[in-house]
Amino acid sequence: MNLTERKWCGWGLAETPDLLKDKRDAFWNWLRELCGFGALPYTPPIDWREIKVPPSQISNQAILELEKKIPLSKITTSQFERIVHSRGKSYLDTLALRTGKIDSYPDIVVYPATKEDIIQLVRWCNLNRVAIIPFGGGTSVVGGANPIKLDSHEGVISLDIRSLNKVLHIDRKSSIAKAEAGIEGPALENILRSEGVTLGHYPQSFEFSTLGGWVASRGAGHQSIKYGKAENWFVGAEVVSPPGPWKTENFPASAGGPQIRDLIPGSEGTLGILTEIEFKVHPTPQETYYSAFVFPSFENGVETARLLLQEDIPLAMIRLSDPYETFFFTAMQMGGGDPSSIPQFCLMLIGLEGSSSAVSAGRQIVNNITSNYQGLSLGEGIAQQWFSQRFLLPYLRDEMLDYGIGVDTLETATRWSNLLELYEAIHNAIQSAIEEDEELKPKFPIVMAHLSHAYLDGASLYYTFVFPRSLKNPEEQWWRIKNKASETIRSYNATISHHHGIGTDHKKWISGEKGALPYQLLYQIKQQIDPLNIMNPGKLI
Amino acid sequence: MNLTERKWCGWGLAETPDLLKDKRDAFWNWLRELCGFGALPYTPPIDWREIKVPPSQISNQAILELEKKIPLSKITTSQFERIVHSRGKSYLDTLALRTGKIDSYPDIVVYPATKEDIIQLVRWCNLNRVAIIPFGGGTSVVGGANPIKLDSHEGVISLDIRSLNKVLHIDRKSSIAKAEAGIEGPALENILRSEGVTLGHYPQSFEFSTLGGWVASRGAGHQSIKYGKAENWFVGAEVVSPPGPWKTENFPASAGGPQIRDLIPGSEGTLGILTEIEFKVHPTPQETYYSAFVFPSFENGVETARLLLQEDIPLAMIRLSDPYETFFFTAMQMGGGDPSSIPQFCLMLIGLEGSSSAVSAGRQIVNNITSNYQGLSLGEGIAQQWFSQRFLLPYLRDEMLDYGIGVDTLETATRWSNLLELYEAIHNAIQSAIEEDEELKPKFPIVMAHLSHAYLDGASLYYTFVFPRSLKNPEEQWWRIKNKASETIRSYNATISHHHGIGTDHKKWISGEKGALPYQLLYQIKQQIDPLNIMNPGKLI
Repeated sequence: MNLTERKWCGWGLAETPDLLKDKRDAFWNWLRELCGFGALPYTPPIDWREIKVPPSQISNQAILELEKKIPLSKITTSQFERIVHSRGKSYLDTLALRTGKIDSYPDIVVYPATKEDIIQLVRWCNLNRVAIIPFGGGTSVVGGANPIKLDSHEGVISLDIRSLNKVLHIDRKSSIAKAEAGIEGPALENILRSEGVTLGHYPQSFEFSTLGGWVASRGAGHQSIKYGKAENWFVGAEVVSPPGPWKTENFPASAGGPQIRDLIPGSEGTLGILTEIEFKVHPTPQETYYSAFVFPSFENGVETARLLLQEDIPLAMIRLSDPYETFFFTAMQMGGGDPSSIPQFCLMLIGLEGSSSAVSAGRQIVNNITSNYQGLSLGEGIAQQWFSQRFLLPYLRDEMLDYGIGVDTLETATRWSNLLELYEAIHNAIQSAIEEDEELKPKFPIVMAHLSHAYLDGASLYYTFVFPRSLKNPEEQWWRIKNKASETIRSYNATISHHHGIGTDHKKWISGEKGALPYQLLYQIKQQIDPLNIMNPGKLI
Repeated sequence: MNLTERKWCGWGLAETPDLLKDKRDAFWNWLRELCGFGALPYTPPIDWREIKVPPSQISNQAILELEKKIPLSKITTSQFERIVHSRGKSYLDTLALRTGKIDSYPDIVVYPATKEDIIQLVRWCNLNRVAIIPFGGGTSVVGGANPIKLDSHEGVISLDIRSLNKVLHIDRKSSIAKAEAGIEGPALENILRSEGVTLGHYPQSFEFSTLGGWVASRGAGHQSIKYGKAENWFVGAEVVSPPGPWKTENFPASAGGPQIRDLIPGSEGTLGILTEIEFKVHPTPQETYYSAFVFPSFENGVETARLLLQEDIPLAMIRLSDPYETFFFTAMQMGGGDPSSIPQFCLMLIGLEGSSSAVSAGRQIVNNITSNYQGLSLGEGIAQQWFSQRFLLPYLRDEMLDYGIGVDTLETATRWSNLLELYEAIHNAIQSAIEEDEELKPKFPIVMAHLSHAYLDGASLYYTFVFPRSLKNPEEQWWRIKNKASETIRSYNATISHHHGIGTDHKKWISGEKGALPYQLLYQIKQQIDPLNIMNPGKLI
């Protein structure tokens, strides 16, 4: 991990992979027309060297004192490090970085060398009332890694966990492995796969995010149907909190009361720093099969997904694009398309992973159920293309922002019986919020969604929306859309997030989602374990 | 549910089903020899009418006041009701009931008629510092339903939830149903199956235990591999706690922070009364296949189980008896056997449930893996016999106790890599504890186990042990065995209970199992929600 190879104010690598290739000009021209722009405005980010970072509030003397306690760890106040640790990858984060209008910075950035150093660091911070923000890949899209401190705090530290990046143990017999929380996706999977196993957790941020971040945010990988969401594959952790280091339970199953371990996934660093994590692994699948189908309607695709989830087949992924997403992806490939007559076709990608015999039996069942709902097989090519490009789409956001176009995503989950109504309602909420702004009303608003991460009892819905972005009040514009979508989600009793987490951006909806007593309990748990609220304050709770 | 049809001081129905049939005399004679008894001592329970129940500590005036608040509910101080609600079905409970040496009784027994009445009742109890013990089937084998009150309490109520026994809603589309917590297994499954779905939760107590009890104790049914343990099929609940009624989250999946819902399974009534419960259901399986295999060693059977858990087949159950259990069950069928040369044979029952095609594909994989480990198929007959008798075994305990023989069970769960060593260690611990008593040393101690409830990462071990029981100090004798087994379990870092729960009997091991900080957190959660500790005090926390 070399920070200078990463884009400082946007997604991923500084050197952007080319997703559009020879369709680049046509695609941009098409986007320009949809947005209703005469010419695309050029709105590039500023140079980070121009950003005036205020001086660190933690004194040199204090830093020297801290250095003595953790001599092997790296402590820095460099301008670049403080900037790249000041925000994550949310829409608001990206806006802030691009314009240099960053309202808070970590006073110092610490890369602890060992678990023991984290214990010392947390102790020191608790003693000195300094807030600690755990920072993994910094890929939070909800403000989860932003350096907030309270008035009662003397400063704020970004704790970059990425030096703790070792796989510690692989117990193949028990299908459990243990690794340090700062290991990134590719390094982790390389080691696991060289031992014949996989965690199978491939979120879109896979290349840059960390094991600890996956657990802390309750993340989900594309293949979550088989390998589970973080809370499903999470076995146990070592945690460092203000009272000291501790371990969670880690049994395969137990009737030993409520498991405190269950409070860790989704805790977003507010209960402590995760240092070592145990997780379930699977034998690397003997065979993988990814195939595409097209359905005549979203309803037919949803019903197919629902029924597939009741089957005992090695289903790893279902990804059903609505007509708008299907149309948009086709347009990306083709360099455009007529938005005035979007067909009702819905693309579904289905992935099976497992033994050859299970995959082969699964294919038969997939064929039966898809054809019962008029699903037409498109073969493996489209699915393979998606697979090979699956980590590239986020790059497009930065390019769009460069040319006056805003784009963001949001997601939820609900029961099957609530899904179609909710789907329509969120679509309409986002579209009407975009169109509300007379000045920036697009010719054709792009609001598209897919169903993914399905369960026996429901599924997640994931929206992407593209809009001519306001240069005057971009934050206000975004909040207008976000509020309307989020209030719709909550009014349908769906969750405010399926796998992005809460952070700062979803915080105002979390107490309503949980209800008064559960939220109060969560608050009290936080109070007990971190009375000075130094652990990632201002997030989640 | 008619209490007089139930055995007041032992398992199940007053009219005991006949498990042994024509092998009865031979079996008892064989047991007598193993125990080293010249003649079987006759040690029957006393008549419940002989038990002197102390007067209720809750005054008639208070009861009248309470009656006004919950006019539709039944409130009773009858001797019989207070006795049958005084203890559950643990070994110690049964001893206490049989001898009438019962150290605590509920002052009153209340059968609330509605959820609203439970709200009123909890409010009244909190105001008057009266402890509330939720009572479902009363089938706890760890003292979970015993009426304990603290010195600060004015009395103790047994809240029999069984009048709240309706299925409220079946959402077939979302595979979720909702029922009142007091519904018993048969009534629940009858209604679900008439609608084409099943919860699939069949613990040994199925006929008598309640939905609420299953969740509160973190229970597991025989087919937990397919249908999940209570914490897996539990979707959400309505709870009544001292601060008032509340609901848990109930999303199919969420990244909305830690889910307070996860604190409910295993809470054993200490956080509140569960009134309504949502749970996952599955379509009733098109086909079920239960078959028996015999393995040349426990190790081979364990490895077979472990590998089957990695397959994508509709596995519902694996039950691998060790050589002792295999021998004992054979002896039960045959009316005896030579214990001096127990063969290493291990019986395994394998159950598949699902669509015809999945079961058929699964059978092929079962055949492959079992034969790789020298498993010999015995066909479906033995499995069907087990299936038809699976709820009958607990009856044998009462009969044994009538004739001077003690029997109890205990269970744990651990990782596959720890399983064989733990298996040996617990066996040895129980056997040596039984043999320690020179006076009551059996000729051949019966300590037997099976592996069941398996997971990708581990499995549970379930022990049954039979011993000549002490008539002088039966509690002390039991604690000697229990302590030794439990300390062995904990020293191997396995859980003190896989599905029985904590109650009073496992309480002394729970803080060690959880670790200081997690246990303290659990304690603080309890404090926050129930500061007067009126909710099932003395259990779990």
